[in-house]
Amino acid sequence: MKKTGLRIAAVLFAFLFQITLKAQPMNTKENQNTSGIFPKGEKATQNFTGTAWVKTLVANDDTLTTIISDVVFEPGARNYWHTHPAGQILICTDGVGYYQEKGKPIQTLHAGDVVKIQPGIEHWHGASPTSSFTHIAINVNTEKGVVNWLKPVTDDEYNSK
Amino acid sequence: MKKTGLRIAAVLFAFLFQITLKAQPMNTKENQNTSGIFPKGEKATQNFTGTAWVKTLVANDDTLTTIISDVVFEPGARNYWHTHPAGQILICTDGVGYYQEKGKPIQTLHAGDVVKIQPGIEHWHGASPTSSFTHIAINVNTEKGVVNWLKPVTDDEYNSK
Repeated sequence: MKKTGLRIAAVLFAFLFQITLKAQPMNTKENQNTSGIFPKGEKATQNFTGTAWVKTLVANDDTLTTIISDVVFEPGARNYWHTHPAGQILICTDGVGYYQEKGKPIQTLHAGDVVKIQPGIEHWHGASPTSSFTHIAINVNTEKGVVNWLKPVTDDEYNSK
Repeated sequence: MKKTGLRIAAVLFAFLFQITLKAQPMNTKENQNTSGIFPKGEKATQNFTGTAWVKTLVANDDTLTTIISDVVFEPGARNYWHTHPAGQILICTDGVGYYQEKGKPIQTLHAGDVVKIQPGIEHWHGASPTSSFTHIAINVNTEKGVVNWLKPVTDDEYNSK
């Protein structure tokens, strides 16, 4: 009877190990802070606080006049206050993020959320303090301009949520 | 000693059950042919062959002049031949898809692929025969027009890959 118990344990252990292996790639992706769709881009070196990666999916041209980027923010990372002369659309694909327009409270964002940013509206976006965040950013009508960077988001502003 | 073996089995079983519960939502999403980011939209009732769902993420307006939709195609499903007067960008997020421009061979698409469709180019897109396919479709500069639908993609055309 001792053998039977140990045999059950062995079978369950083998099955468990198989399940763990299957689950591994998903966990790995989460640890890499990717959305699971695009590989991480270049580390942002200006106009960001904290660590973020920007991958250009569509470069600007005179025909489509659109720039599309995949942006991954580490927890606590955010971009500076800025405006878009022609507006921008954010499609949230992974993690938990923050979005704030000047004079309004911070909004929390999750995968599946879409943000329409109107032309000239001062705002910033980034990850929440405890989760990474990934969004696709779509700059439309780039013939009217792309972005005007302003001041960093202070810790007080970021922690006002 | 029999009790020890069974106790190990019980602990492993409890752990295994927990792992299985965690894995469940991912499998469920795959079975539903979603990209895991957006819920399925409305079933397409015209200009498509086979079954597809279209979810509008951004409706047209005079300021951003952009329409964004999440489209899920069942295996074998595709839209009709068509053109976009101002072009369109596809961001592939799940599954395996097909894209063809008139007079060119069918291209296979995977998650992470981005397609820039130039204005006026006759084309179609859809799932491959054996896999569902999800893409985000971005219609830019809609003030110039959105789409002109043409003829269905015949089975001979679809199977020419």
